[in-house]
Amino acid sequence: MKRIFDPVHHFIELSAAEARLLDAPAVQRLRRLRQLGLAYFAFPSAEHSRFTHALGALAMGTRAFDELAKHGRAYFASERDVEDRRRLVRVALLLHDIGHGPFSHACEAVLGVRHEERTRAILASDDLRAGIEAADVDPAAVLALILGDSGGAYPELRELVSGPNLDADRMDYLQRDAYFTGVAGGRYDADQLVASLRLLERDGRVVAGIDGRGVVALESFVLARYMMFASVYFHHTTRLFERILQDVLRELWPDPRTLDDIDEFLRWDDFRVLNELRDRSSEAATALRERVRLYALAAEFNAERDLHAYEACRAALAERFGKANVWADEQSQVLHRLPLVADDATPTVWVGGAAGVVDAREASDLIRKLTGKAYWRKLFVRRGAVDVESARRICREITARAR
Amino acid sequence: MKRIFDPVHHFIELSAAEARLLDAPAVQRLRRLRQLGLAYFAFPSAEHSRFTHALGALAMGTRAFDELAKHGRAYFASERDVEDRRRLVRVALLLHDIGHGPFSHACEAVLGVRHEERTRAILASDDLRAGIEAADVDPAAVLALILGDSGGAYPELRELVSGPNLDADRMDYLQRDAYFTGVAGGRYDADQLVASLRLLERDGRVVAGIDGRGVVALESFVLARYMMFASVYFHHTTRLFERILQDVLRELWPDPRTLDDIDEFLRWDDFRVLNELRDRSSEAATALRERVRLYALAAEFNAERDLHAYEACRAALAERFGKANVWADEQSQVLHRLPLVADDATPTVWVGGAAGVVDAREASDLIRKLTGKAYWRKLFVRRGAVDVESARRICREITARAR
Amino acid sequence: MKRIFDPVHHFIELSAAEARLLDAPAVQRLRRLRQLGLAYFAFPSAEHSRFTHALGALAMGTRAFDELAKHGRAYFASERDVEDRRRLVRVALLLHDIGHGPFSHACEAVLGVRHEERTRAILASDDLRAGIEAADVDPAAVLALILGDSGGAYPELRELVSGPNLDADRMDYLQRDAYFTGVAGGRYDADQLVASLRLLERDGRVVAGIDGRGVVALESFVLARYMMFASVYFHHTTRLFERILQDVLRELWPDPRTLDDIDEFLRWDDFRVLNELRDRSSEAATALRERVRLYALAAEFNAERDLHAYEACRAALAERFGKANVWADEQSQVLHRLPLVADDATPTVWVGGAAGVVDAREASDLIRKLTGKAYWRKLFVRRGAVDVESARRICREITARAR
Amino acid sequence: MKRIFDPVHHFIELSAAEARLLDAPAVQRLRRLRQLGLAYFAFPSAEHSRFTHALGALAMGTRAFDELAKHGRAYFASERDVEDRRRLVRVALLLHDIGHGPFSHACEAVLGVRHEERTRAILASDDLRAGIEAADVDPAAVLALILGDSGGAYPELRELVSGPNLDADRMDYLQRDAYFTGVAGGRYDADQLVASLRLLERDGRVVAGIDGRGVVALESFVLARYMMFASVYFHHTTRLFERILQDVLRELWPDPRTLDDIDEFLRWDDFRVLNELRDRSSEAATALRERVRLYALAAEFNAERDLHAYEACRAALAERFGKANVWADEQSQVLHRLPLVADDATPTVWVGGAAGVVDAREASDLIRKLTGKAYWRKLFVRRGAVDVESARRICREITARAR
Repeated sequence: MKRIFDPVHHFIELSAAEARLLDAPAVQRLRRLRQLGLAYFAFPSAEHSRFTHALGALAMGTRAFDELAKHGRAYFASERDVEDRRRLVRVALLLHDIGHGPFSHACEAVLGVRHEERTRAILASDDLRAGIEAADVDPAAVLALILGDSGGAYPELRELVSGPNLDADRMDYLQRDAYFTGVAGGRYDADQLVASLRLLERDGRVVAGIDGRGVVALESFVLARYMMFASVYFHHTTRLFERILQDVLRELWPDPRTLDDIDEFLRWDDFRVLNELRDRSSEAATALRERVRLYALAAEFNAERDLHAYEACRAALAERFGKANVWADEQSQVLHRLPLVADDATPTVWVGGAAGVVDAREASDLIRKLTGKAYWRKLFVRRGAVDVESARRICREITARAR
Repeated sequence: MKRIFDPVHHFIELSAAEARLLDAPAVQRLRRLRQLGLAYFAFPSAEHSRFTHALGALAMGTRAFDELAKHGRAYFASERDVEDRRRLVRVALLLHDIGHGPFSHACEAVLGVRHEERTRAILASDDLRAGIEAADVDPAAVLALILGDSGGAYPELRELVSGPNLDADRMDYLQRDAYFTGVAGGRYDADQLVASLRLLERDGRVVAGIDGRGVVALESFVLARYMMFASVYFHHTTRLFERILQDVLRELWPDPRTLDDIDEFLRWDDFRVLNELRDRSSEAATALRERVRLYALAAEFNAERDLHAYEACRAALAERFGKANVWADEQSQVLHRLPLVADDATPTVWVGGAAGVVDAREASDLIRKLTGKAYWRKLFVRRGAVDVESARRICREITARAR
Repeated sequence: MKRIFDPVHHFIELSAAEARLLDAPAVQRLRRLRQLGLAYFAFPSAEHSRFTHALGALAMGTRAFDELAKHGRAYFASERDVEDRRRLVRVALLLHDIGHGPFSHACEAVLGVRHEERTRAILASDDLRAGIEAADVDPAAVLALILGDSGGAYPELRELVSGPNLDADRMDYLQRDAYFTGVAGGRYDADQLVASLRLLERDGRVVAGIDGRGVVALESFVLARYMMFASVYFHHTTRLFERILQDVLRELWPDPRTLDDIDEFLRWDDFRVLNELRDRSSEAATALRERVRLYALAAEFNAERDLHAYEACRAALAERFGKANVWADEQSQVLHRLPLVADDATPTVWVGGAAGVVDAREASDLIRKLTGKAYWRKLFVRRGAVDVESARRICREITARAR
Repeated sequence: MKRIFDPVHHFIELSAAEARLLDAPAVQRLRRLRQLGLAYFAFPSAEHSRFTHALGALAMGTRAFDELAKHGRAYFASERDVEDRRRLVRVALLLHDIGHGPFSHACEAVLGVRHEERTRAILASDDLRAGIEAADVDPAAVLALILGDSGGAYPELRELVSGPNLDADRMDYLQRDAYFTGVAGGRYDADQLVASLRLLERDGRVVAGIDGRGVVALESFVLARYMMFASVYFHHTTRLFERILQDVLRELWPDPRTLDDIDEFLRWDDFRVLNELRDRSSEAATALRERVRLYALAAEFNAERDLHAYEACRAALAERFGKANVWADEQSQVLHRLPLVADDATPTVWVGGAAGVVDAREASDLIRKLTGKAYWRKLFVRRGAVDVESARRICREITARAR
């Protein structure tokens, strides 16, 4: 057994086989992918990697699974079945991010391939497959859990791995991102949330959810997500440099199809991209290397009622300064991190209680109010080409009239 | 200068005159009043006193004042004016809670006198008056600030002391209560909130508010209040024993008018009440001493739409089990701690920006959603007299029908 | 199962029988005994009770026991034997402090009875005995563990409960006192220390100790004790008021023998003593109530080489100002809290490794340097009767000459 | 003014000129140098950069300087003089690490040039010189402070920047390294240490030191250094891979002299070295890339009395397995980080008090015991070439005999 120390979860224990899996190049590569991409431009200490997050997700997922098993032993065939699924969940969480490219979301935007899709090919490599099997886990079940494949053998475990709302991925990254940025608002009552996890029966199916006494902990979890979004993930400095980064990536990868080759893809990581900047002289590469703000924030919008104002401002700026000089950031790539985005047909989190199993929106006024589409929008204009003060005034006037 | 160490704010510095004021019996008495009353029945470590909170409020208020003064020097007549008001704010915050009786809210409920009203008489005592004047502060101005008297000389400082929404009282107690209970959800981004404080002009008046870039910090502050309410202040165990405590206080004070005498009033504190329990044999005294849960929670309600169900359950329980065996807890005494309770006419927090000074509800979708009346209600029934399971079933059925 | 939340250890779980034991009046009384006595005169927030410490000791002891059992299953007769001893350790730690009187050390100094001796009588009371047996634990074994009785049935568990060096008592109180005072120096690497605990064989006996890889964690534990002593436990303000408190206790208990009756003894707690101050007019009672410093620190000594200077100063002050006006504080009552006080014959902590089981002084240069007698001494003089500046000068001159 | 958020020091404020200096490529390069080099092999989350440390050193140095100035205004010619020196200290701390090469100590070992020596050339570059002058600071004074040049104009400020014992560099990195590794033992009472800083007069010179009441805080600072050394800086996994890294660097830089050119030197950073590993097939490069432990720890020694045993083991291993297969790690490159290494002639920290200004070894028994040479030694053997168990047994036997 190997013990690894982590400032968020303290000791994380790994079996010998898990520790060997950790040393696989595709997993060690996660040390060179930052959990928060370019957020260090706004929060300098946000330098933590997806590698520490993978360990943290394994740790949180184990605690979550153990709580489900402790209260739901009846849903498992045997003690051995518990152990089998526990190993599966751990390995799936350790590997859930291996499909990410450099700077994750920017990379996906440029290459047009979601990280989950890369996972299949990477898991199929000989060394990973062998490592997973050495840990007495079925690689196909790992893939199904990571992809959230509805045909997977253990549907009730999917929520723990791929969410969308009670996954160990989020349970770790909120705590981790809050710790490494220092943003207090991202902390939530993780002990209480884990303690309330339960397997529940809903319409004849077994689903993962929470006990009714955990509603406040779930609220704190949802609010922490909201606060991290507002403070960190959508910070305008980060967004601005991620926009510039996309131009850099297009320059580095004139033919995105070359990265369809998984070996070539795995040769790329954040450090290599930053390293490539050294000798490049394009405007984007220079801006990223020397921290030049090519864009300026003209306006931001946070509420549904401002959607019209947003569209009107966007159109006005484009007309006045030219479409190429306006960047309307709808931030759709990170929307899956939002608090409980849901439509009426999709459940959020199941909550058990004396009165049966209900959706969290039924159990909590606060969650009902916070659930739904997000309305964060930002409008940037190019410095140099646009008079920033004029752009801001135009937006202010339109917004004031629209209200 | 005296330095006091505090786990929340680290060093708190006091002038020699402030340190002497601290030693006044009416201030030392705050060591025997707990900040969270009987919450230690639910959170054992919540044993912190109003004394440490008074020091913490002084510390937060000083930071808040310094930020206002740094950015708003134009609103002060002179450097000396800054110093004068700073001393005033500090002393007012140090003394803002001296009017509390034992267990605060329970005491107010039984005696029918709000703590602010006691403050006038206590401040008028010779030793406090002399201590305040020795700190070069006007006792009348202190009283006006604590009472939030609209005729006070420094209206823009009232918000810092008596709120209702940006006061150093709340800024300290949220951090402190979160620290001493360990509830993570109560933490907010205090550094960012303080850094965004500004004096603003609104309709020709100077008001305290925040800069537009502080909206996220304000949201974290509002959410922290919500979470502490949901987790700690309204915890059913605390509420239940506070109900029992009221019976004990009535027993201890058969004639509440004897405590109108301020010297007699000051002779009472939490420790004395707990001490008085030792030799009493009434049901309430025994229950408080031996932690006997005389009541059981039958149902709780958190949303506006459940108000009808709440009323219906309350009526049904009263009819079935007798009015005397049902306790409907609307928690109105603690409602002033709620996040941004406001009506349409009263502002919440002023937010400055390029577009002028607006209400926080305009600046934040989240704050608009959370502002308004609170709908937390609990129904308790007396154990022994009532079959608890039947009571819970009645409530469940009524609530299910009402939705 | 009952879950209690604690800011130091997060959730602490109790069985139903343990939770009922918690409600026994002798245990609830611990809520009215402060862990750090009068230290709140120097650190205002040090208001935490022995009740929270008792829960914390149970929590740490459980973690420690589980680690011993996990690695030392061979030393247990059966799985059931593990469970039996685990319950025993938990109950013993929950109850280990029930013999303390008000303000603990001051009380022991005045009454001349050590708290462990009261424990026997208290444990013999009907309700505690019944409560312990309901938890399926033998009251006699509990008593033996608390007293560190060498004839006890489980000698290897004594170290966990009554020390002297690896007990869960210290493991909790260092973390707790550091948390509630805010003194960073009191934190140690508790996770690592617990992870290194092992049952070892030494000269044919099974002893509790640590694995060799835990030496650094043990060092951090020893240093944390040193720092808490230097910062908090021996703080001159605390010592000074504990001296005054002894006079108050003598006033309250003119005949100490009345407290030999255990029922009478249990009727006393910190809150009652503080309450009794209200109407007393003796110098000591007034001083404690109004925080009057009757003594002033004339000199303090921390090193062995200063022992002669200490004795010389003490004699000189006594000669000059009268013996009654000098208080030489050798702090012997708290010496048992010191880091690894030991003589050559008594082991400190056993450390296992490839080379066999050795004393911690063999395994760590740092521990060898820090082990031994403590040489903290303070000389106080009575204000009013003594010119403090003269007293300090006398001590300075003697000390300078002595070096 | 620009505000940067840091999890250790919260808001760090920079003037506009300082913020521009931050964007200089030589400063931004610090983002690609890790504060703890390869320590992330043992503590995965230790991924923080020298960039965040430089900001933290500036923050701690400012607090330290402000305390010195507040209590020592008499040592400054004017208010303007205070401001001038404050700006100087801030800029010097911001830039104190710009001379580091990739992986710092390994780089120095390979290139044979200490980082301070590079600093002169880097500071002489046009853009840094201009940036420093724009911040109204003299580049020559910055260089003198960083180099600890005894001929510098402000000798009393040298201690704050280049130590050896009270520098803001250590004040920050201990807190930061403790935070990012999670090792509790590295925390010290920074608030108390800073609060005790004073300018003192000793033999007619002004020196930086501490007030006598700060001795405990100084002890906690010294102990924190000790603990971080024992837990992190000398961790055998880190040391082992730093040894391998040296071989990699020699491979990357066959002619070390090419890096004498400062432009070429600045083109190297940790990320580039890691990036270069991708396509290399040497044993060292492969080991570093795939985390292969080429060496195994045979024995470690921590005490002076073990020096003979260390030498004997070293000789025995070399004789048995060949010198090339044994690595004796005396860790001399990191010794400057040790607690209060000093000889009798060199002072440690000056401590002021009523009895004059004395060395910290006079004021603290603990510091006297801990001061002196360090005796940490480790012996590694090459896996494959050496039978590790035999090597360990040889060392055990020699050590046992030597004691």
